[in-house]
Amino acid sequence: MQELLERVRAAAAPAALCGKVADYIPALASADPAALGIAVVDAEGNEYAAGDARRRFSIQSISKVLALAYVMTERGEEAVFSRVGKEPTGDPFNSIIRLETSAGRKPFNPLINAGAIVVSGLMPGSSPLDKGERFRAFVGSLLGRGDVARDDAVYGSEKSTAARNRSIAWFLKELGLLPGDVEDTLDVYFRQCAVSVDAVDLARIGAILCLDGVDPVRRGRVLAARTARVCKSLMVTCGMYDGSGEFAVDVGIPAKSGVGGGIMATVRDRFGLGVYGPALDERGNSAAGLAALARLSDELDLRVL
Amino acid sequence: MQELLERVRAAAAPAALCGKVADYIPALASADPAALGIAVVDAEGNEYAAGDARRRFSIQSISKVLALAYVMTERGEEAVFSRVGKEPTGDPFNSIIRLETSAGRKPFNPLINAGAIVVSGLMPGSSPLDKGERFRAFVGSLLGRGDVARDDAVYGSEKSTAARNRSIAWFLKELGLLPGDVEDTLDVYFRQCAVSVDAVDLARIGAILCLDGVDPVRRGRVLAARTARVCKSLMVTCGMYDGSGEFAVDVGIPAKSGVGGGIMATVRDRFGLGVYGPALDERGNSAAGLAALARLSDELDLRVL
Amino acid sequence: MQELLERVRAAAAPAALCGKVADYIPALASADPAALGIAVVDAEGNEYAAGDARRRFSIQSISKVLALAYVMTERGEEAVFSRVGKEPTGDPFNSIIRLETSAGRKPFNPLINAGAIVVSGLMPGSSPLDKGERFRAFVGSLLGRGDVARDDAVYGSEKSTAARNRSIAWFLKELGLLPGDVEDTLDVYFRQCAVSVDAVDLARIGAILCLDGVDPVRRGRVLAARTARVCKSLMVTCGMYDGSGEFAVDVGIPAKSGVGGGIMATVRDRFGLGVYGPALDERGNSAAGLAALARLSDELDLRVL
Amino acid sequence: MQELLERVRAAAAPAALCGKVADYIPALASADPAALGIAVVDAEGNEYAAGDARRRFSIQSISKVLALAYVMTERGEEAVFSRVGKEPTGDPFNSIIRLETSAGRKPFNPLINAGAIVVSGLMPGSSPLDKGERFRAFVGSLLGRGDVARDDAVYGSEKSTAARNRSIAWFLKELGLLPGDVEDTLDVYFRQCAVSVDAVDLARIGAILCLDGVDPVRRGRVLAARTARVCKSLMVTCGMYDGSGEFAVDVGIPAKSGVGGGIMATVRDRFGLGVYGPALDERGNSAAGLAALARLSDELDLRVL
Repeated sequence: MQELLERVRAAAAPAALCGKVADYIPALASADPAALGIAVVDAEGNEYAAGDARRRFSIQSISKVLALAYVMTERGEEAVFSRVGKEPTGDPFNSIIRLETSAGRKPFNPLINAGAIVVSGLMPGSSPLDKGERFRAFVGSLLGRGDVARDDAVYGSEKSTAARNRSIAWFLKELGLLPGDVEDTLDVYFRQCAVSVDAVDLARIGAILCLDGVDPVRRGRVLAARTARVCKSLMVTCGMYDGSGEFAVDVGIPAKSGVGGGIMATVRDRFGLGVYGPALDERGNSAAGLAALARLSDELDLRVL
Repeated sequence: MQELLERVRAAAAPAALCGKVADYIPALASADPAALGIAVVDAEGNEYAAGDARRRFSIQSISKVLALAYVMTERGEEAVFSRVGKEPTGDPFNSIIRLETSAGRKPFNPLINAGAIVVSGLMPGSSPLDKGERFRAFVGSLLGRGDVARDDAVYGSEKSTAARNRSIAWFLKELGLLPGDVEDTLDVYFRQCAVSVDAVDLARIGAILCLDGVDPVRRGRVLAARTARVCKSLMVTCGMYDGSGEFAVDVGIPAKSGVGGGIMATVRDRFGLGVYGPALDERGNSAAGLAALARLSDELDLRVL
Repeated sequence: MQELLERVRAAAAPAALCGKVADYIPALASADPAALGIAVVDAEGNEYAAGDARRRFSIQSISKVLALAYVMTERGEEAVFSRVGKEPTGDPFNSIIRLETSAGRKPFNPLINAGAIVVSGLMPGSSPLDKGERFRAFVGSLLGRGDVARDDAVYGSEKSTAARNRSIAWFLKELGLLPGDVEDTLDVYFRQCAVSVDAVDLARIGAILCLDGVDPVRRGRVLAARTARVCKSLMVTCGMYDGSGEFAVDVGIPAKSGVGGGIMATVRDRFGLGVYGPALDERGNSAAGLAALARLSDELDLRVL
Repeated sequence: MQELLERVRAAAAPAALCGKVADYIPALASADPAALGIAVVDAEGNEYAAGDARRRFSIQSISKVLALAYVMTERGEEAVFSRVGKEPTGDPFNSIIRLETSAGRKPFNPLINAGAIVVSGLMPGSSPLDKGERFRAFVGSLLGRGDVARDDAVYGSEKSTAARNRSIAWFLKELGLLPGDVEDTLDVYFRQCAVSVDAVDLARIGAILCLDGVDPVRRGRVLAARTARVCKSLMVTCGMYDGSGEFAVDVGIPAKSGVGGGIMATVRDRFGLGVYGPALDERGNSAAGLAALARLSDELDLRVL
């Protein structure tokens, strides 16, 4: 496996040349576009890693899956899905139009920004800081370590430039979908997006999802099976932005990407996968990461569809 | 397996009480709401059937998957996907708004009406009748028999009541996405939707898809692997109308439903499944069919997500 | 006045250089882009004309006002406005999106294509031909002559190229807003748009509207006052396509344009105006016609706002 | 005239029973629903008033016209209309969808909330307070008095409940249409909407507009003619929310309403009119005020269309 990962890494690395790093905030723009890390954790808990698999980056939109798992755990499925749908959408991730025209007047799913902000608004805690810390602790509990960091430069930059997300959040407030203070809710959201992870971390969480909530390393249940299934279902239908359909054809497994360059993927009963490559394609997915996952899917016959 | 199917059928049948048969045309309205048929074809080609698995019904929207497979085979992937996208959408199946506002000005995918009509417009043949006959022959070739019928009452009714589809088709014409005559293209579409199948037929085609294009009964390739994969990917992201997300959580396999009451599903390397239950839920999916598939998924551990 | 019209014509003619004739059908594309005709009929019934004021062209969208007047006369205000709104819209004239998203599910007003097609569907008569003839007779009755012609080349071309209008009409059918056969209704609509008029004709009808329905030439009422008012109100809010707001600022009187190059305008108690200039600006309004009306508005202090 | 106003007031007062006062903030909910004031200022500067014409209320959306006049005066027409359109729209006043789908990516006109917030963002001044004070001084200069008050309860309430407007403003920020701080811009907007006026004030400003910017009382120009014309053109096409088309038919003059219960109207060369009646119809226009204006239009033959 180790040899395979090295080979896949070498083959996929040139794809980074077709992408470019996110540059809407300085903290992301400084990433090394040539970086590529790949990690796999199998159902027995064995870890394999190649390249920059231990380089840290901000989790960004991958946090939407973890926040959903966290809030489903803390507040229950009904608390979430009475306010957000479960249906995919081909809209850009940051569209408002669907809130205004959809009959249900709720965001389509928890993996688009509008839905994710609703989920952030449901996190337990006494303040944005407290909520952010608790979420960080939850991620740490999945990873079996207490030291999950947050990238404060990313957090600060996001917080100061998020006009579109503020527009979405105030619209959600108008619709009665945000119980608390709007700016506080956004603060929680920016905190969750700035959590620092590496490819191995993503593979470990992917491995938990692949076993429907059981951690193969510590061999115990850390998420309810239903929670893991909901997360995986949403990942397969809308985890890769406007490229979700393409990804289902080319790779064929549940996955979630973030503009920090990470992708977390999961293959039922077999593997969790994590990749890191900050040069993004035009849809916001890691260019080299996609190439690596497509190749891994072929080599390991990962496709579930 | 046979005993299991009987048990599942008995347990799922009452769910039909929560649905009602489609009544927008007389030919559908006369279906028996209590009917429920279940069929499974495994990767070795063994067939199992319970209840009304041999009762015929019109294939309706399930034909969108077969038409896509047919046109990909005859014209190539590029011919289709230069005119239609691959991305899911949470819109109702018959929406026009997305054609007018989406940047690409093409239908989101081949499983919504707009995309399916584009696919119908690409079928080879000298006339609507010829195109319809060739498609029927293609379905027959998948099923290994030459006698696939068409329900002419359904065809006639659909043709005379399809104001929304005509509106969509003329809009596609305006966008340059329909090469031929609009009414002829719709005629092909209505013909394809009126093809008569039963639950066993659907299970057989599902089994071909589960083996990426190889027929387990006749033990030969009948579809290109890539074609089968594209079909399955679209089924998992948008095969069950507005209930695609829910279905991914509750059942977790690629599937496609039709308002005739059928659902075709497929489980990689293992099974093709077909169900028939004409009483539909409010999203247009077979109510008892959904119940049966959910139970089968649990009993046989079918979930791939 | 005659001298003034000549002067205005000379000054406005160069504006035609900034426009181009409609070329979506051959019958329009062959128009002389340099043509410019201006006509005024005052409240005493005196006619003044300059330039190409007697050259014939197809009335096109200006017919929407006349069809509205006709159907209000024959069927009553309620018959129209239970199916169409009275509100302006900044959308392009041929948008469908608003039908799908607006709460009322009816076209915004009778001067956009969707609303105009609904109005055409309400015309009395036993066949499209009969309806078209009756409408032609109605226009003749306003003009006090029986020989109003129809441009059959325009009628034929429009009929064979109207994909967008067919899409709109079928959508209206779906919404229950078209009582009769869709293609027949479109045939009536194409017939009404192909009626041949000249600038003097438009000025005469404008003069009738300026006197709230009384013909200043024959000195008798030819339209109900309420009907004339409804027409003028819609002309001021949405008579000039996407340029209605600009026109209200620059000219300040009710007017309606057509892609044939005509504009009909009306100034309460004072004048009817007609212009013809087939070179259109990017919004579909006669470029030289706009220039002429702006100048006339200044010289004669026509502005009513 | 005085006798006429009393008669119109008596006849229109019962229409208030069909309306209800705005109740989204307490400061508006406490208004007397039966109040009705009517004022007319003629082109010679004579004032006439009846009923509650001196009762103060918050100007609300009528301020959009004054803010437009103010910013056109201070910054020029181009500064405004490079960021906002001039076209009418049938959308609800607070829609976001059109920002996201319209090609120009700018608000349709300065009389819908999105456009008005852009205008507020262009007001000169060193702080929201300073900008608000300058606007108040501008209104005072039109009215020829220095003591124009602001209703601080209204200002405070609006500021604390404006989720939808905040969503719109952040969207405008994203589009690059708001140069300054978003919350500061909204503060200016809330200040301008809370300016206190009475029906006589509105009639006086209407009289200035009727003379294209000349004050008939002090007999001097206070607005550029072009500015007055732009304001009146927008009032006639979109001054009465979703009831603009109806109002053009029934009353036929440029007017602007506010949810405080006021309507300001203007008749070229003849009159300015102001009415106050806080019970609103379902479109947000003063119910008794509409009745009074319709009757005045008939009695004084005000209709300009």
